[in-house]
Amino acid sequence: MIDHEAVREANIAFYRAFENLNIQEMDTIWADEDYVRCIHPGWDARIGWNAVRDSWVLIFNNTFGIQFSVEIIDMMVRANFASVACIETIATLDQGTWQSGMVVATNLFEERHGMWKIIHHHGSPVIGGHLNQEAK
Amino acid sequence: MIDHEAVREANIAFYRAFENLNIQEMDTIWADEDYVRCIHPGWDARIGWNAVRDSWVLIFNNTFGIQFSVEIIDMMVRANFASVACIETIATLDQGTWQSGMVVATNLFEERHGMWKIIHHHGSPVIGGHLNQEAK
Repeated sequence: MIDHEAVREANIAFYRAFENLNIQEMDTIWADEDYVRCIHPGWDARIGWNAVRDSWVLIFNNTFGIQFSVEIIDMMVRANFASVACIETIATLDQGTWQSGMVVATNLFEERHGMWKIIHHHGSPVIGGHLNQEAK
Repeated sequence: MIDHEAVREANIAFYRAFENLNIQEMDTIWADEDYVRCIHPGWDARIGWNAVRDSWVLIFNNTFGIQFSVEIIDMMVRANFASVACIETIATLDQGTWQSGMVVATNLFEERHGMWKIIHHHGSPVIGGHLNQEAK
């Protein structure tokens, strides 16, 4: 249960860093390894922290404001490995108005020296709210 | 290395079952557990084998033909847990003509009694081939 809570906090910290558009926060949250991976909605996979980090810098430089409401729909912890599925309800600031969207994400975490670091983020757009209902 | 090869074969078997539109093959490949998850491109998450299985039946009933070319871009094995990222180049038969598309997938596997079972599939459309280049 302690691990579950630590993973939940790591997941929260990830979205907080994203909301803050703060690359230094991302630096502390992600494992600095060749094997970390990030798939942004509609993007191909980025592999390795350098490529993943560059993608965050690119996104942060092109984002004026973003807010997340994140619902964890499932969590799995196996030894030092954790997998979180969550629904991100996202509001983004675009030309002075807030737009909303929904993304479903797979986030993987690895425990290193007592810290849960994110090693994989895969976000994909949810098309049509009715699918949301079907999935229940 | 043996585990990597077994995970690679489990990943191949998953796409073969998909190409064959064969739910019985999916039955043998997936772990029959409440915690398995599946996120089809554009869909919300399905959680639990019953809901995941229903989604495959729905897709198979509405697919006339599908062919995959799958490139594993990264694989991670940690004890009895494995994570595979791959690019699916997909051809689907639609009203007599083949359409192609590209999906990036996160597949998670768990070893159970010497067998690697899929426990999570997350596919998302790759929008624009140029992003593919950027990610290298």
